[in-house]
Amino acid sequence: MRAAVMRDSKMVVDTLPEPVPGRGEVLVKTLACGICGSDLHALKFTKQFVENSPRAAGSGLDITKDVVMGHEFCAEILDHGPDCTRLYKPGTRVCAMPVLMRQGMPLAVGYSNEVPGGYAERMLLTEALLLPVANGLSTERAALTEPMAVGVHAVEMARLAADDVAVVIGCGPIGLAVIAARRARGVRPIIAADYSPLRRRLAETLGADVVLDPAVTSPYGSFRDLAALSRAGDRLPENPLTGAPTLRPGVFFECVGVPGVIDQMMVGAERGSRFVIVGVCMEPDTIRPLLAVTKELNLQFVLGYTPEEFARTLALIAEGVFNVDPLITGKVGVEGVADAFRDLGNPEAHAKILVEPWRTR
Amino acid sequence: MRAAVMRDSKMVVDTLPEPVPGRGEVLVKTLACGICGSDLHALKFTKQFVENSPRAAGSGLDITKDVVMGHEFCAEILDHGPDCTRLYKPGTRVCAMPVLMRQGMPLAVGYSNEVPGGYAERMLLTEALLLPVANGLSTERAALTEPMAVGVHAVEMARLAADDVAVVIGCGPIGLAVIAARRARGVRPIIAADYSPLRRRLAETLGADVVLDPAVTSPYGSFRDLAALSRAGDRLPENPLTGAPTLRPGVFFECVGVPGVIDQMMVGAERGSRFVIVGVCMEPDTIRPLLAVTKELNLQFVLGYTPEEFARTLALIAEGVFNVDPLITGKVGVEGVADAFRDLGNPEAHAKILVEPWRTR
Repeated sequence: MRAAVMRDSKMVVDTLPEPVPGRGEVLVKTLACGICGSDLHALKFTKQFVENSPRAAGSGLDITKDVVMGHEFCAEILDHGPDCTRLYKPGTRVCAMPVLMRQGMPLAVGYSNEVPGGYAERMLLTEALLLPVANGLSTERAALTEPMAVGVHAVEMARLAADDVAVVIGCGPIGLAVIAARRARGVRPIIAADYSPLRRRLAETLGADVVLDPAVTSPYGSFRDLAALSRAGDRLPENPLTGAPTLRPGVFFECVGVPGVIDQMMVGAERGSRFVIVGVCMEPDTIRPLLAVTKELNLQFVLGYTPEEFARTLALIAEGVFNVDPLITGKVGVEGVADAFRDLGNPEAHAKILVEPWRTR
Repeated sequence: MRAAVMRDSKMVVDTLPEPVPGRGEVLVKTLACGICGSDLHALKFTKQFVENSPRAAGSGLDITKDVVMGHEFCAEILDHGPDCTRLYKPGTRVCAMPVLMRQGMPLAVGYSNEVPGGYAERMLLTEALLLPVANGLSTERAALTEPMAVGVHAVEMARLAADDVAVVIGCGPIGLAVIAARRARGVRPIIAADYSPLRRRLAETLGADVVLDPAVTSPYGSFRDLAALSRAGDRLPENPLTGAPTLRPGVFFECVGVPGVIDQMMVGAERGSRFVIVGVCMEPDTIRPLLAVTKELNLQFVLGYTPEEFARTLALIAEGVFNVDPLITGKVGVEGVADAFRDLGNPEAHAKILVEPWRTR
């Protein structure tokens, strides 16, 4: 089968052997698979990625060998391996968390040398983890389940209260997923900041109330405006010396993942703010702990999602709560993956590119 | 009056004008005042301290002028200024949060150019903030209220659950206060780590269950031993893929405050750990966000205490719940402050030195 392969830190197209489903596994046709920022990271920072990512490490990833990445997929069942219940027939469209269980150990689909990810024509999935895609739901939308689940999880981990004001720093696919997940919980306002006009338009589409260009308007100033309590006594003073609070609490989602952003947030945010760090910064970063101490900041680093959150996300997409269509800005076959990786470096050109490995160029 | 003065980043002894109490203020005799690690920081890192500390900044601290530090005090009322209720008579021993309210604005006692802190023979305090010291409670113990309140606050901010295992990294006065506050809540076990034998002995005295030298034994390994669940099923699995958790959650208190400690903790701690950062690191610090993301760590930075926590701490000391006597390892007059600052650099020699400004050398 044809696949886009990471080989010596380059994306190449090659023909690979057909995968054969083992016990409890199904063979699927990859219908669509999103290109994730983590995949761009893995290609650019292969060594750090493998050393520090438990997903990669757990799969014993060897970067001197081929890897077929791709973990944001919608697929179609082709065949069942031994010991399957065959609950879903061949032809059924499915989503699944990108994990293949073998001998009780999880292999990371998309970050494994042993099994291909979604940039290949066919994959193997664990039957027990399959989630059927409803008839009315398009394949493209279903393929957005994985990145949207990251937003759902981040919002869960933020333990948001009804009067928290959310500020989303960075409106790439993960920032957009956070906005949608926050909006789905019905709590507002949501402030979103990104330098890119395309991403700001998407942030508005996904449900942000205030969308701004940080080069022009400070998200922290906007937060202070929007979080200002309408009158004294809206909240009881905790500390009689400092008086009653004048702001609603702020939760700042870091969805950029480059060095310096956390420090910037520490400078800008108010005392008592909570940060949810969703962006994955691959390089060491410098912070000033004294700033964080004097503001009593809370930093919650988050990764991935639970099985429940993943299934709930697919349901929210199916119900139309998450309007994911505008995120999809391009589609390529396996021959187009290398160029798509390059194009995704330009935030003005793209949000999410789907790989459709069945496409002929 | 005589006072130890910070002048040009040096500690000198000088004679200063007598303070005169303003409206709602009392004149007090400083009976005892502890030397705080923050004071050592302020002397060593004066510029950063002033720029970043809201206590110093809020008081408009000018480091080119004299500062009389000292904010951990027990004092005796000498006289009342205008508009006082005179609820407590002259002769009454009092503690107070180190804040003087003037025209509705808080001045930081101990970090102000306008009013002296506890390294002076006499101070001014806000009458409304005075807490009387019970007859049976010694002046020395009462003077420990402020640093112990920092531990009480840190433990409050940790939002500890009944089955959390606490690990205290660093057993200086703040680490010891955390141990005592944790123990007072009745939740165990408490693991404490410090390179100094003196501090390890104090940690045991204050109530740590396991006390270790990190040069010999890993606090993270000890955590894994102590946090191991006795049997499968003690906790429900959140994620069926990863199986049931095998450890109780861990809360790690950073009570060191030097660069590199947070990164070390990120390397050592288990997935899902919470860090409470109580130590005040004055310099920029480097972390690896990817480590924190892949472990979904939570970092709560904390500072100070609320008025309720401060008053509760004094009560806990009075009731004998906090056994603070062993912390006091030295006493000096104002002439001894400069040497005491130097001696406190050796963790083997001292934990807490009290300044008794009324002492003749």
